[in-house]
Amino acid sequence: MRKLFIIGIGTGNREHVTMQAISALNQIDVVFIPTKGDEKAALAAIRHEICDRYISRPVEIREFPILQRNRETPDYRQRVIDWHDMIAQSYGKLFADMPDDANGALLVWGDPGLYDSTLRIVESVKEQTGLAFDIEVIPGITAIQALTAAFAIPLNTIGNPVTITTGRKLVSGWPDGADSVVVMLDGQKTYAQIAPGNIDIYWAAYVGMEQEILISGPLAKVRDKISAAREAARAEHGWIMDIYLLRRTSA
Amino acid sequence: MRKLFIIGIGTGNREHVTMQAISALNQIDVVFIPTKGDEKAALAAIRHEICDRYISRPVEIREFPILQRNRETPDYRQRVIDWHDMIAQSYGKLFADMPDDANGALLVWGDPGLYDSTLRIVESVKEQTGLAFDIEVIPGITAIQALTAAFAIPLNTIGNPVTITTGRKLVSGWPDGADSVVVMLDGQKTYAQIAPGNIDIYWAAYVGMEQEILISGPLAKVRDKISAAREAARAEHGWIMDIYLLRRTSA
Ligand SMILES: C[S@@+](CC[C@H](N)C(=O)[O-])C[C@H]1O[C@@H](n2cnc3c(N)ncnc32)[C@H](O)[C@@H]1O
Ligand SMILES: C[S@@+](CC[C@H](N)C(=O)[O-])C[C@H]1O[C@@H](n2cnc3c(N)ncnc32)[C@H](O)[C@@H]1O
Repeated sequence: MRKLFIIGIGTGNREHVTMQAISALNQIDVVFIPTKGDEKAALAAIRHEICDRYISRPVEIREFPILQRNRETPDYRQRVIDWHDMIAQSYGKLFADMPDDANGALLVWGDPGLYDSTLRIVESVKEQTGLAFDIEVIPGITAIQALTAAFAIPLNTIGNPVTITTGRKLVSGWPDGADSVVVMLDGQKTYAQIAPGNIDIYWAAYVGMEQEILISGPLAKVRDKISAAREAARAEHGWIMDIYLLRRTSA
Repeated sequence: MRKLFIIGIGTGNREHVTMQAISALNQIDVVFIPTKGDEKAALAAIRHEICDRYISRPVEIREFPILQRNRETPDYRQRVIDWHDMIAQSYGKLFADMPDDANGALLVWGDPGLYDSTLRIVESVKEQTGLAFDIEVIPGITAIQALTAAFAIPLNTIGNPVTITTGRKLVSGWPDGADSVVVMLDGQKTYAQIAPGNIDIYWAAYVGMEQEILISGPLAKVRDKISAAREAARAEHGWIMDIYLLRRTSA
């Protein structure tokens, strides 16, 4: 049976790669690497480097362009689903081209389970094409672990829950009862749009990477500094990825 | 400056270890390994194996007994805080014994940020003893990533939040508005105490390890099977660590 490894590679630090990922990388024949745009180019370069550094047998590297979402579809969920379908079609072609007994790999940023569509897309490739292949998922360091490690802080307060959410969701209100909230996928600087009272923020851009920026403090005090740093960095690099932890303080 | 690495080692699979953890392990002079009880013995054995496998220079391995919490302190948070203080005192002695220019390491199960007291304890060692040392945290694969990888499922549904919580907290109710809830630190089989309607469970014990057990399905249908498997495994091994994802289904 043909096998597809879905490998978490961590969040940009080449040393986030696990021994398990390295063993998987050395069992494959083809790696598929998505490309498109400034951000995607930087991320593709890191995937290439990881292959160069950790694969010690001949392997074919096949780049493929990632299609853009159709911004005209009004509903967010539908837009994402349509986009997955489009991508599933191009993946289907890529996989169908693989020799029958070949193993392939997709290198997923961070961990394949966290705000990533690869698993869903691969499931629809199976449904749409009827291709048979096994899937093995290799866990990866997420941006959340990279964030808390960079600040040397715990994610949770003692015995309490943690909410992981998106900028889009945070706009509509602080999660009920939460004291530790991680925000990802926030292109809108949502931290600057919420009531900042009694909240500390730990903000990181490009965490784990050479460009890493870390800013933390009471939200009211540091939010403008974060926005300025965020804009400058995005202008400089052409893209940005940031994540933050918001913590309600008792005071 | 003396340095203490706090290294996430993943959740029992020796290959969860990252390249970054391996580099850190090879910069240290002393590793501190906690011991106590059946579970702790198994976990200590894995820490020893990781040192054997990945450290390629002479290093001193110093075992130290972990004290038990005082079960008589009624308040959970206070009990944990008192316990941290006690542990901080024994860590303080261990660190004080290190040569001035030596680097030490604590190997933390999973990731050091997630439901783990090491960072808090090390902070109180600094406060209590006035010892000066730098701290570097190396992120690790958490039981959450190991869980979703084992089932090859996403952690979140498209664009939606995820709540990470404990058995103790879940008893008092389903987190408001959540559709994906990860439960850790549950010694009470809380999944069997909640209304099971429209919930799928993905349950894993010893995830990533040789003893791994995976059970999933509609909660109403599989909860007894999980409890039976859980009891049998605990009787067999003398200890158990389990984690689960609860997902509200629309049906
Ligand atoms: C599509 S999600 C993928 C998350 C990834 N699967 C993970 O496990 O971290 C992308 C979001 O992850 C966060 N992110 C990923 N890598 C990051 C990095 N190096 N620095 C800061 N944020 C990062 C950002 O919030 C970004 O919007
Ligand atoms: C004190 S917390 C430590 C969590 C750890 N720092 C991490 O990142 O996963 C211990 C809890 O983690 C979960 N856990 C850790 N390792 C596990 C494993 N191999 N299998 C199942 N659950 C695990 C269980 O819920 C357990 O009660």
